[in-house]
Amino acid sequence: MLALMLRSAYHAPNQREGSALADHMTDNLGPQPEIVLVRPQMGENIGAAARAMLNFGLERMRIIAPRDGWPNQSAVAMASGAGRVLDGAGVYDTLADGIGDCDYVYATTARSRDLAKPILSPERAMAEARAMRAEGKKVAILFGPERTGLENGEVARANAIISVPVNPGFASLNLAQCVLLTAYEWRRQTTEFQHEVMEWAGSERAPSIEVEKLAEHYEARLDEAGFFYPPTKAPVMKTTLRNMWSRMPMTRADVQIFHGILRQLLRGKQG
Amino acid sequence: MLALMLRSAYHAPNQREGSALADHMTDNLGPQPEIVLVRPQMGENIGAAARAMLNFGLERMRIIAPRDGWPNQSAVAMASGAGRVLDGAGVYDTLADGIGDCDYVYATTARSRDLAKPILSPERAMAEARAMRAEGKKVAILFGPERTGLENGEVARANAIISVPVNPGFASLNLAQCVLLTAYEWRRQTTEFQHEVMEWAGSERAPSIEVEKLAEHYEARLDEAGFFYPPTKAPVMKTTLRNMWSRMPMTRADVQIFHGILRQLLRGKQG
Repeated sequence: MLALMLRSAYHAPNQREGSALADHMTDNLGPQPEIVLVRPQMGENIGAAARAMLNFGLERMRIIAPRDGWPNQSAVAMASGAGRVLDGAGVYDTLADGIGDCDYVYATTARSRDLAKPILSPERAMAEARAMRAEGKKVAILFGPERTGLENGEVARANAIISVPVNPGFASLNLAQCVLLTAYEWRRQTTEFQHEVMEWAGSERAPSIEVEKLAEHYEARLDEAGFFYPPTKAPVMKTTLRNMWSRMPMTRADVQIFHGILRQLLRGKQG
Repeated sequence: MLALMLRSAYHAPNQREGSALADHMTDNLGPQPEIVLVRPQMGENIGAAARAMLNFGLERMRIIAPRDGWPNQSAVAMASGAGRVLDGAGVYDTLADGIGDCDYVYATTARSRDLAKPILSPERAMAEARAMRAEGKKVAILFGPERTGLENGEVARANAIISVPVNPGFASLNLAQCVLLTAYEWRRQTTEFQHEVMEWAGSERAPSIEVEKLAEHYEARLDEAGFFYPPTKAPVMKTTLRNMWSRMPMTRADVQIFHGILRQLLRGKQG
């Protein structure tokens, strides 16, 4: 019965049922981050990532547009005793769908990017993440495809970057190892962590979905206004702008102000 | 010439020459622990362990009685770019030979043992190990065969046990993953780790005067556009907006983007 429920969840377009089940199963493990595999390529690596997670008690997996579809028998075979992580994984078509309910997003990347984005060690990031989870905020950690890593447009959607401080002369961590080190750091800080106090001037931090909508609003109106010029530079300009929105620690009130600014500027010039 | 020297080292009975060469090669990396693989079974796992080490700048490997002999082509193939770790590895027939020159020995084990032996987390053990290495003491960390782990008699030879605090309900770390976590912990406690790097993509934080001019630009144009409405609320709205600009950690590039957004929105609506 449960197996049937899970399989039907995989066929639903938005495919959030998997995550809801994971909610139910993992509530008693304490607050956890969402481990998000973005466009993972090989099933074996997804299964290995599930094992890596479960070694440190993490079970909340999300998968965005897996290359070979879902479910994936190679993943199941590799996951072996960690199969329940796959069973409870939410599967999504797009990154926006996959992290739409998250309040804070980290992107793990090894290669340096030409993006202005805070870069944290796993240690520091997991300390922050624990504090946020303790406040009931949903935290996602993105891991990119094995060969290419996350695209700049995907990194731009994150609030901060996690970079494992590997040997510059030899950096060869695979997907499961990145997930392992992240999960290890999460769990290592179990008994004590430094609660980081974030001042929000009396207003809570805007959830990712609101920042996303703000970014879309500006991109659409600026596109109409001819801001992204010349056309050859438009993609980079859009990514830079998207990155900027995610980098700003905005309150919900700030988001409303920015929406209002845009609307009024357009309205004010109509007369 | 160097390659020939290394191969002859492998045929010497005591086989310490490999370690001496590793001494020479790694002295400039700072003091390091000896990563000791005890009776490793598969060449691929030895190669994977070499890669795991080198990710965190560790190169001092010792191998005790490898099941399939030495050298091992599977190990070489798997090690790939980390081949020099294998090249410099000391190979020994017995554990006693392999750690005879060490001052302190840790044994990594997952299964609990009926041995009265201090059990440390990798974090605590590496902190101790770093302090000992700083005093010039040689520290060895033992990793047992993949399937069975270290024998009690081997654990008994150690001064302390390292146990990675894995999920009791699912503990499946493989050899390379154990080595990886240990190497990561060693390196994490180095001062060179930059825990948080704010990359501004070559663009520095905007000086206050630029933020001030940005604020004035927006206030002036928004005033003309009728944004501060009704008039009774205008002073508070202006202060709120001015406060928001100062709160955002903006780069000089961000300031230019915001100026550009404002100009283009106004220009775009004129047509």
